[in-house]
Amino acid sequence: MALDGGPQLSQPVAGAASFDRMWAELTPVGRAAATGGYRRFAWTTVDSTLREWFTAEAGRRGLDVVRDRAGNQWAWWGNPASVPGGGVVIGSHLDSVPDGGAFDGPLGVVSSFAALDSLRAQGFAPSRPIAVVNFGDEEGARFGIACAGSRLITGALSADRARALRDADGTSLADAMSGAGFDPTQVGADDETLGRIGCFVELHVEQGRGLIDLGQPVAVSSQIWPHGRWRIELPGEANHAGTTRLVDRHDPMLACAELILAARQAAQRHGSVATMGKVSIQPNGVNAIASHVTAWLDARGADPDAVRAVVDELAGLATAADGSLELESWTDSTVFDAGLSDRVRAVLPDAPVLSTGAGHDAGILANAGVPTTMLFVRNPTGVSHSPVEHAETDDCHRGVDALAAVVAELAGPPATVR
Amino acid sequence: MALDGGPQLSQPVAGAASFDRMWAELTPVGRAAATGGYRRFAWTTVDSTLREWFTAEAGRRGLDVVRDRAGNQWAWWGNPASVPGGGVVIGSHLDSVPDGGAFDGPLGVVSSFAALDSLRAQGFAPSRPIAVVNFGDEEGARFGIACAGSRLITGALSADRARALRDADGTSLADAMSGAGFDPTQVGADDETLGRIGCFVELHVEQGRGLIDLGQPVAVSSQIWPHGRWRIELPGEANHAGTTRLVDRHDPMLACAELILAARQAAQRHGSVATMGKVSIQPNGVNAIASHVTAWLDARGADPDAVRAVVDELAGLATAADGSLELESWTDSTVFDAGLSDRVRAVLPDAPVLSTGAGHDAGILANAGVPTTMLFVRNPTGVSHSPVEHAETDDCHRGVDALAAVVAELAGPPATVR
Repeated sequence: MALDGGPQLSQPVAGAASFDRMWAELTPVGRAAATGGYRRFAWTTVDSTLREWFTAEAGRRGLDVVRDRAGNQWAWWGNPASVPGGGVVIGSHLDSVPDGGAFDGPLGVVSSFAALDSLRAQGFAPSRPIAVVNFGDEEGARFGIACAGSRLITGALSADRARALRDADGTSLADAMSGAGFDPTQVGADDETLGRIGCFVELHVEQGRGLIDLGQPVAVSSQIWPHGRWRIELPGEANHAGTTRLVDRHDPMLACAELILAARQAAQRHGSVATMGKVSIQPNGVNAIASHVTAWLDARGADPDAVRAVVDELAGLATAADGSLELESWTDSTVFDAGLSDRVRAVLPDAPVLSTGAGHDAGILANAGVPTTMLFVRNPTGVSHSPVEHAETDDCHRGVDALAAVVAELAGPPATVR
Repeated sequence: MALDGGPQLSQPVAGAASFDRMWAELTPVGRAAATGGYRRFAWTTVDSTLREWFTAEAGRRGLDVVRDRAGNQWAWWGNPASVPGGGVVIGSHLDSVPDGGAFDGPLGVVSSFAALDSLRAQGFAPSRPIAVVNFGDEEGARFGIACAGSRLITGALSADRARALRDADGTSLADAMSGAGFDPTQVGADDETLGRIGCFVELHVEQGRGLIDLGQPVAVSSQIWPHGRWRIELPGEANHAGTTRLVDRHDPMLACAELILAARQAAQRHGSVATMGKVSIQPNGVNAIASHVTAWLDARGADPDAVRAVVDELAGLATAADGSLELESWTDSTVFDAGLSDRVRAVLPDAPVLSTGAGHDAGILANAGVPTTMLFVRNPTGVSHSPVEHAETDDCHRGVDALAAVVAELAGPPATVR
């Protein structure tokens, strides 16, 4: 079956030029002058600007934009209701961590639009519908749950729990959605949307040093490590820092410090990674012994048992300090679909295969039964979630080419392309 | 010499009743519903409300309110310019630490007004001018420098440094003053105001357990420990919490945790106290390795060499972590004026003598050469800088009586009162 291919641009542009234009347009959006980092948080004014940009880019290409029950945006080329088994979906997210880099998320969305432009410039006529997706709130920077958009539509995050999440200012997710013009009462598992996804390929900047070491611009992902977040509550007793004898103190900062060091030591021992990068101290005054500390643990690793062992050690320490450790989110080990991966590797024979410790919407969809895989683009700093996160323009263009080749394989008439 | 005694209330009220009324009026101002703690920070709307209350109470009593070059409020009974050597000053401050208690500061101001009412009800006619003072920004909760009001008028804090201080939102002290209607260009050392202070007696809630153990309601202070604040900067490298190998990390949270534990251990070893109760983490995200941590050290003790030894240990650790430790403020050991203390102890023969680890405006004035001492009122919880900080009403009234007796001794005609 061949679709009509949708409206064609009167002057098709090559993927690389298209990529460069879109990238330059997005660069200033949500960038903090003080740090050079990005603050693109869910359901903010900056998020609305990014969503409007997505809608405009879809409109330029005559794609139909649909918002699902979690507010994720889908730009369809062709009608996904017209074929059983759904279409080929590419894309990623546009939000960021606090003071994050420019590439984590947007590289996948921009490369997806550019890949379509590249295919159209070659006269490509898809045999299946194709979509570019912008998943909302992937980083969880504002409400604490990563991949909230994909978790909601797959049912991994319940609508009631999501609506009640609050940001640091006490604003609920429901109120934040309303404020951005999205009706929070419609939030929930979305089988209709899931049914439209035949397969999903997410292109992403690499968040480690694998491609640097291998000297390659693009990799295919084999799996995502199991990973989770836990909230640690450590109670104390507020008191004066000058007049309270050391023996009379109940200072939760000491327990917090022990947990920070123990997380690192336990991860080393168990061959996984663990991080405590967020702490909230009450009242956070120089001359006041803290009354309460809340800290968060991020733990991951190739082996889920190793991750659990780290978390158990920290739970023991928290309990010993009259505190608690509670799971906020957990994603099991994700091994990407073998059949899909084989087809992707066949068109990218030079691309090495890497696993990753980062969570992605691709992992959430894979765990919900959607055939999924990922492509990674080399990051010469090896650093992500930071303003120094980077990808060279040539490597970005190689990523666009790789993604176009994958889409041609998955959505093209057999043997007519490649 | 006898002053005219100023306008008298038509119905003089006893000090206890006056205390209770004023205390009830102040209770709701700046109290956070969520915690029950007080958030009375310098140059805020709440601070303005407290200043207006002070002016109104002075007006009720016919006292003349003067604002000095730092914005501290002085309510004079009698004309301080009329006598060489200045008047007798009592009072304290009205601001609080974050989520502090009701008593630290306000107890001294309210007791001072009540002591004057008690004296007037007894027909007391002062032989020297008397003032009640409200020192601004004693806690340093907003701009980081404790006793900013008294440090400014004594020159211990320079005007230029003060005006440039910034709060957590980036607002400068100069802008905060302007916003509250106080001209920051006039800020600076204020010899005229200092010259009016013949002596200063600050009544304060006790911030430890000394009076509980001794079974007494009121104590006289002998000295304030040397104490200081230091800012610790710990650099790191922002990166992804899932994809960055442990060996590739430069995570400043680990150094911070080591410093928190080392501060406690060093203080134990050196017989002093040390506290780290305030930490600022960049970017403070669950899945982001911190790029930078700023932490503050509060260190005090009876022996200044012991305090210095603790600080030197921490400076070594900060340097070893590529960071730094810098002094923000330091107040030497303060031994209160012997002649003044002798007179105070003579009228309060049952009051024990205590030293304290808390800094006070009384200490700043004493170090500037003003004869100064303090009274402490029993705190049954032994806890301060917390909503559970407390003083029983009977003890508060005993404090008012003690302060009235001290003022009668210092400002009364010899041998006519007591």
